[in-house]
Amino acid sequence: MSGYFISIEGGEGAGKSTALGCIKTWLTDQGIEFIVTREPGGTPLAEEIRNLVLAPRDEPVDVYAELLLVFAARVQHVKQTILPALKAGKWVISDRFVDSSYIYQGIGRNIDAKVIDDLVDRFLQGALPDATLLLDVPVSIGLQRVASRGEMNRLDGESIAFHEKVRSGFLALAAKHSQRIHVIDANQSLESVEADICNVLSDLNTSAVGNP
Amino acid sequence: MSGYFISIEGGEGAGKSTALGCIKTWLTDQGIEFIVTREPGGTPLAEEIRNLVLAPRDEPVDVYAELLLVFAARVQHVKQTILPALKAGKWVISDRFVDSSYIYQGIGRNIDAKVIDDLVDRFLQGALPDATLLLDVPVSIGLQRVASRGEMNRLDGESIAFHEKVRSGFLALAAKHSQRIHVIDANQSLESVEADICNVLSDLNTSAVGNP
Repeated sequence: MSGYFISIEGGEGAGKSTALGCIKTWLTDQGIEFIVTREPGGTPLAEEIRNLVLAPRDEPVDVYAELLLVFAARVQHVKQTILPALKAGKWVISDRFVDSSYIYQGIGRNIDAKVIDDLVDRFLQGALPDATLLLDVPVSIGLQRVASRGEMNRLDGESIAFHEKVRSGFLALAAKHSQRIHVIDANQSLESVEADICNVLSDLNTSAVGNP
Repeated sequence: MSGYFISIEGGEGAGKSTALGCIKTWLTDQGIEFIVTREPGGTPLAEEIRNLVLAPRDEPVDVYAELLLVFAARVQHVKQTILPALKAGKWVISDRFVDSSYIYQGIGRNIDAKVIDDLVDRFLQGALPDATLLLDVPVSIGLQRVASRGEMNRLDGESIAFHEKVRSGFLALAAKHSQRIHVIDANQSLESVEADICNVLSDLNTSAVGNP
């Protein structure tokens, strides 16, 4: 018996936290055991790595150093948190996972996707989400939401052009992995967003029940 | 014009600090500009990563997470500290470099050398030492020295068997890369150790002067 692994992706201010709340409610209503985690992070060491990656700093951070830090955190996260929970039959809901590396490090930092593919193949060994919810919202809306929360970190501080690359990159990834990645229009009313998310979860759970 | 890149390697208590002091004196006497750095570390971010790697912690650290952390620090070190110094014509003296990964992560943690080779090829892109001084001392002597300094960290705390694997691993590496890695018998008198180190540096400097 194994749980389902779901990741939530999207640019800054896309509404991942709102989506998380709605997913938690749905899983609780269904009586499904689950854990909620996030990337970078998900274990004490991985959270410390997250702090290193997101901290504003004067020192220019080499793009490959950042990529390797993110993967170090991810490997720790998979081995210490995700796989044990799945093996215990729990669903795992992760705020960001490997797609974010293709976007923030790959497209955002001009790192060839092949470099990321090789890290995924070698170090994750198949520990990939069963389903991914991509919260999609226009960049201007997302940044307004972040600004209104008063939360800015090193990645938030990037230029508008960077955020546009992030958005189009995520949509391209969703087109490429259309079976796994479900695009949620996060510029709708809260009720409509929640309904869309619950529909994806219901379909996934139905297919899970249908499996031998 | 480019400086020379020298790394110093050896197990715990082998006398790397003593060797460093002797190298600094020699370079100063020759009027050669140089920087002294260390791994993991060598930049503010890389030093923060070092702290994560060496800190004692209850959470089991996945061996691949540790490997990726070490390489993240190394990439940052190479790009921000080592290459700029070499380009400025300075010699770079690093307390540990990539050989330590083949030993502490490779042999010590049972990670296949091929995994490390691939990280070296992809992320270091030829930024390897021109010469490496391997300080070699019996494990019992090295551990006595560490204990007498009252300095213990997570790696020092490993078993005697681990330290024996480290020592034999370094010696095997020296046999494999006999042109680059110079084994210094660090169980001699201080004067003899210093004389051996100065001989290696003199030969290197002579060959450097002899280059077109």
